[in-house]
Amino acid sequence: MGGLRLLASARSAGKTLAFRGATVPVEELTEQSFDGVDIAFFSAGASISRRFAPIAVAAGAQVIDNSSAFRMAPEVPLVVPEANAHMLSDAPIVANPNCVAAILTVALAPLHQRWSITRLQMATYQAASGGGAEMMAELRDATRAHLDGVAFQPQVLPHDYAFNIFSHNSDVDPETGYNGEEAKVIAETRRILGQPRLPIGVTCIRVPILRAHGIALSVRFEDHVSADAARSALEGAPGIRVVDDRAANRFPMPSDASGQEDVLVGRIRQDQADPTGRTLAMFIVGDQLLKGAAQNAVQIAEALRAP
Amino acid sequence: MGGLRLLASARSAGKTLAFRGATVPVEELTEQSFDGVDIAFFSAGASISRRFAPIAVAAGAQVIDNSSAFRMAPEVPLVVPEANAHMLSDAPIVANPNCVAAILTVALAPLHQRWSITRLQMATYQAASGGGAEMMAELRDATRAHLDGVAFQPQVLPHDYAFNIFSHNSDVDPETGYNGEEAKVIAETRRILGQPRLPIGVTCIRVPILRAHGIALSVRFEDHVSADAARSALEGAPGIRVVDDRAANRFPMPSDASGQEDVLVGRIRQDQADPTGRTLAMFIVGDQLLKGAAQNAVQIAEALRAP
Repeated sequence: MGGLRLLASARSAGKTLAFRGATVPVEELTEQSFDGVDIAFFSAGASISRRFAPIAVAAGAQVIDNSSAFRMAPEVPLVVPEANAHMLSDAPIVANPNCVAAILTVALAPLHQRWSITRLQMATYQAASGGGAEMMAELRDATRAHLDGVAFQPQVLPHDYAFNIFSHNSDVDPETGYNGEEAKVIAETRRILGQPRLPIGVTCIRVPILRAHGIALSVRFEDHVSADAARSALEGAPGIRVVDDRAANRFPMPSDASGQEDVLVGRIRQDQADPTGRTLAMFIVGDQLLKGAAQNAVQIAEALRAP
Repeated sequence: MGGLRLLASARSAGKTLAFRGATVPVEELTEQSFDGVDIAFFSAGASISRRFAPIAVAAGAQVIDNSSAFRMAPEVPLVVPEANAHMLSDAPIVANPNCVAAILTVALAPLHQRWSITRLQMATYQAASGGGAEMMAELRDATRAHLDGVAFQPQVLPHDYAFNIFSHNSDVDPETGYNGEEAKVIAETRRILGQPRLPIGVTCIRVPILRAHGIALSVRFEDHVSADAARSALEGAPGIRVVDDRAANRFPMPSDASGQEDVLVGRIRQDQADPTGRTLAMFIVGDQLLKGAAQNAVQIAEALRAP
């Protein structure tokens, strides 16, 4: 382990970034880039991962991949350390999940371990950060234009993001009607929980917030589970902060979750849609850029290197 | 029927409003205000309705009440004309429902009439307008302050509304964990659909949009219903515009629904949380100030006066 190397396209080569007080130059990614690299973090999209991850592995690196390229490959562990660290091995590639699946499974894992989950129903409140820095900038620019009463021509999205919500901007399967984001959430959540046929319904909606995702969740269990028992299980679990103050009407919010490593969980209550008492409702908020992306990748690396 | 009279508190008396080219003065509401009034629209909160609606009725007026004061009173019809116009009668008071319940039941009615609904599960995306003009102003002001990087002290809400979402700001029942808005949606939807024990789960979330509410909905039926059959039923139904273009990724959005009388319905698909095929998922958006409030009240008046 000798330090940090930053690799990017030719366009970014020559820039520098600060890391632990040092200035690190950005180099152009080539097939020779991985000599001497122990762990390679990939976060440049699925096509770059598909091309260069095998090259990094051949050079002796272990790859932690933030793209969707290998998430469903049977030989590649898909890992959220709080949920399924036992899947980690000396596999050459480890996949980092979709942001919603990562935030969700942190909250589900301690519940699933105690009481088997038999169904999930969700609606998401997803931040602009999931669409990258350009989408965050467009949200700010569109909103300022709206407040100033001036026309705004969207560049990143096909419609106005100012004070607006819309169905997630991934392609929609013409047969099922589910979009790509929803398909990822379903497939990856099943894989992380080790329940390949778990019934999951989800509607992914983009809302005008900057960097934390919300999830309104109904989770059904094998048997009756009380809200108090679930709250206790969540309070002791890693990576979770319970924010569930009914008297003060204080529950998880993006303004509290942004920049925080913990996933916030609250509004824990019996779901009145299920008269059998086997379903709990809750509301979850997590930072899309941290637990939903970079932080989980770093946690995977730490777990791989743990004694 | 001789025209329009505007009644308000002493604070507003003396102001004027334009109506059909005429300038109408605002008068102070007193116990003598209702002489000669045929239809009285109340929209000044439950306590004003409780005090003055009986006075209006005694003076010979029929009251259409936009507050929650009488919505659960057995002798008072709670009406969304597209859904349950048959409940209208010569009842002295007719109640106008909660905004979410009104928008929701427009979309549910044509489905429930053909295929009995047996369960509803929902998450809402509610606009600032539900909290009145003050909350809309606070959303704009907080957002501008955030964009300008200046501190903002919330006045209407206990937390920052800029690029933020939060659990609905109504009181939370300490026993059930459901808030007042959610309790209204459940009770009023059951009443409008005539299904007093229909299992309904709902999470009400305020999002930073101005005046149209969104609802992510799962609706289970007695038997299998296809997405195509549901879409056809919705396309022919009053008060609904189906916006469901999978190829173009075009679905209901507040930016399309605001200022529109129709409720927009889309993302109609089999809900993968229910392997039995009896559940459909969909996404609904309606203008909170129109179908969610004033427009429904006017439609009630029109239906009452229809030949």
